Amino acid sequence: MAFLVLLVSGNRMNGQSDFGFKPAASNIQGAAFPKLSMDNSVYVRLLAPGAQKVQVQGGDGLCPKPLDLKKDSTGNWNGIIPSAGPGFHYYWFIVDGLRVNDPGSDTYFGYGRPTSGIEIPIADEDFFTAKNVPHGEVREYWYYSEITGKWRRAFVYTPAEYEKNPKKRYPVLYLLHGAGENERGWSFQGRMNFIMDNLIAEGKAVPMIIVNDNGYATAKDAPTAPAGFSARDMTKMAETLEKVYVQEIIPGIDKFYRTKADRGNRAMAGLSMGGLQTMLIGFNHPELFSYYGLFSAAIIGNVMDNPKTAFNGLFADPVAFNKKIKVLWFGAGSGETQFVTMMNDSRKKLEELGIISTGYVSQGTFHEWHSWRRDLREFAPLLFK
Amino acid sequence: MAFLVLLVSGNRMNGQSDFGFKPAASNIQGAAFPKLSMDNSVYVRLLAPGAQKVQVQGGDGLCPKPLDLKKDSTGNWNGIIPSAGPGFHYYWFIVDGLRVNDPGSDTYFGYGRPTSGIEIPIADEDFFTAKNVPHGEVREYWYYSEITGKWRRAFVYTPAEYEKNPKKRYPVLYLLHGAGENERGWSFQGRMNFIMDNLIAEGKAVPMIIVNDNGYATAKDAPTAPAGFSARDMTKMAETLEKVYVQEIIPGIDKFYRTKADRGNRAMAGLSMGGLQTMLIGFNHPELFSYYGLFSAAIIGNVMDNPKTAFNGLFADPVAFNKKIKVLWFGAGSGETQFVTMMNDSRKKLEELGIISTGYVSQGTFHEWHSWRRDLREFAPLLFK
Repeated sequence: MAFLVLLVSGNRMNGQSDFGFKPAASNIQGAAFPKLSMDNSVYVRLLAPGAQKVQVQGGDGLCPKPLDLKKDSTGNWNGIIPSAGPGFHYYWFIVDGLRVNDPGSDTYFGYGRPTSGIEIPIADEDFFTAKNVPHGEVREYWYYSEITGKWRRAFVYTPAEYEKNPKKRYPVLYLLHGAGENERGWSFQGRMNFIMDNLIAEGKAVPMIIVNDNGYATAKDAPTAPAGFSARDMTKMAETLEKVYVQEIIPGIDKFYRTKADRGNRAMAGLSMGGLQTMLIGFNHPELFSYYGLFSAAIIGNVMDNPKTAFNGLFADPVAFNKKIKVLWFGAGSGETQFVTMMNDSRKKLEELGIISTGYVSQGTFHEWHSWRRDLREFAPLLFK
Repeated sequence: MAFLVLLVSGNRMNGQSDFGFKPAASNIQGAAFPKLSMDNSVYVRLLAPGAQKVQVQGGDGLCPKPLDLKKDSTGNWNGIIPSAGPGFHYYWFIVDGLRVNDPGSDTYFGYGRPTSGIEIPIADEDFFTAKNVPHGEVREYWYYSEITGKWRRAFVYTPAEYEKNPKKRYPVLYLLHGAGENERGWSFQGRMNFIMDNLIAEGKAVPMIIVNDNGYATAKDAPTAPAGFSARDMTKMAETLEKVYVQEIIPGIDKFYRTKADRGNRAMAGLSMGGLQTMLIGFNHPELFSYYGLFSAAIIGNVMDNPKTAFNGLFADPVAFNKKIKVLWFGAGSGETQFVTMMNDSRKKLEELGIISTGYVSQGTFHEWHSWRRDLREFAPLLFK
């Protein structure tokens, strides 16, 4: 009865519901907080009796501005983030000015450091859920990079059937993460492997290898790493990363795995900074790739100012381009309007040149992983057919 | 000149050196702190201008008791942990009573939550360092467990040659983590893959598959998970985990990978809680394993009170046991005296029964990963020969 009363008197319609809170599915085993209400309001709590001020803050679609929490008599600080956007969001607490993670959450590499994350349910989440279908593997692949003078790690998805077909060779998608993240993002935050397992089991995508390498690379003789998010820093970094891809990553993967090692069987895609890198690296090497995916791409700086002359004239001959490049695909979430704008502007410029591309808007999602999961769901079925 | 003065006047010999601090190798890219001195004192720093009290605390061999830090005029809290023991140590800050991680460190799953970690150098670290030798892979293997009603993840090491020998089958070592850790511990904190790459490249160990599954399992119909560190909780949990191993993990691995699926080619080993589980699970199934490794095993409760009648009489016939079990191996770090005692007591009891076992003491190490890295280095070469 109490529930019914709440149901009737509760203020559900404007997203301020105060009932039905349950621990988020993404919580660490046994953690009671954060909790989600039926309208995806997020009830956060942090035990910090000695603190003077505690706030919560999170990524695009969750809580971009710090929200003050209130202390109760037990020393717990409590707050409710009103109805959050769907998908995977990074978040953290600010305790008297110090940014700390939530002990109730696992940590995910974002913002250049381990950061708490929460999964907000969405109606179509079935496509990235682990199901009773054959499962591929995500493999840690280590290689020494002469260019950077360091050991680097990539995560490599091999489809479920890979082990059982020791003579079969597979096409490869190089799939890049965003700024502040690392090579684990696509399989951990992005659930890339489950998306692919499901697509392949349904016959929607062909079995393929997917490589997630690290998006940061500094030449071993460079004075310091360009670590900023500016167009200049990102462009500078992509110069080194381009060498790593062309000379080290791709040849290494082709040597170690049973790949189809030709441009017709190679794709590159990336999200945000990784979308920019797909342009800066992939567009400069059409001899290596014939599919491109730009997921919420950070098309910043001057990369698309003069597309006709850019990328060694890649777009100068549209007939040749449309024949040579099988898929040029753009995606963005409807909630991240500046990325929709960048996508539309770029596609318009390309269209004026006669370049064919595909545009996709993920409805109701933001600059976060659910946009990119959907991008992969839409993009992967177009590859290698 | 300033350096020289410090060098001369510095108090190196008693471990209180205040010079030569350099960022720890385990720091996140670009993080200046924590820093290590030449004698492995650890200089920690946390920017928390609003805090009233900040402490640092860490695992066995680092800083088991909280150490007060001092605030400087910039709002940074500073402190030096005097000469730390070698190896990998978890640590954290306590800010006005709140336990938080160090933004300068990656996080490792320990103490049931993501926790900062620091690598303190040691003379023999070469054996777990990535070198220019063929590298195996660490693969994420997902499976649905009917017993627990959950998807579970294991990490599976396949040796470098596995990809190139599609018809060859390999023996398997099941290698278990400790309490509060997870299935990623052996490859992330433990560097298991690099240890094995090096041993195999040197011809010291035979190429083998290593499986790291999660050490926690709760039956799907159980009311709540036994999550404590008590002997009772651990024993209760091992009952479910035993079923998962016998009915799900081992058959699943034998189906998916090219294993030699017989007891002569199967080993089980584990550290701390995982050592206890190796006894509770492995000793009850000599029909599945012929090699056992007990690394700083938590031999608690009554498991070794009556070894002659325990484990379905496994030790009752020493002649049969010594013939059937190829290796029964114990290890402990010299700095974790209670684990050395448990090891010695157990070995003495077994010796009295006529059971042959091997004991190893890792000199100068504690209840932490360097002890267990060395255990693996010593144990793996004895397997499957």
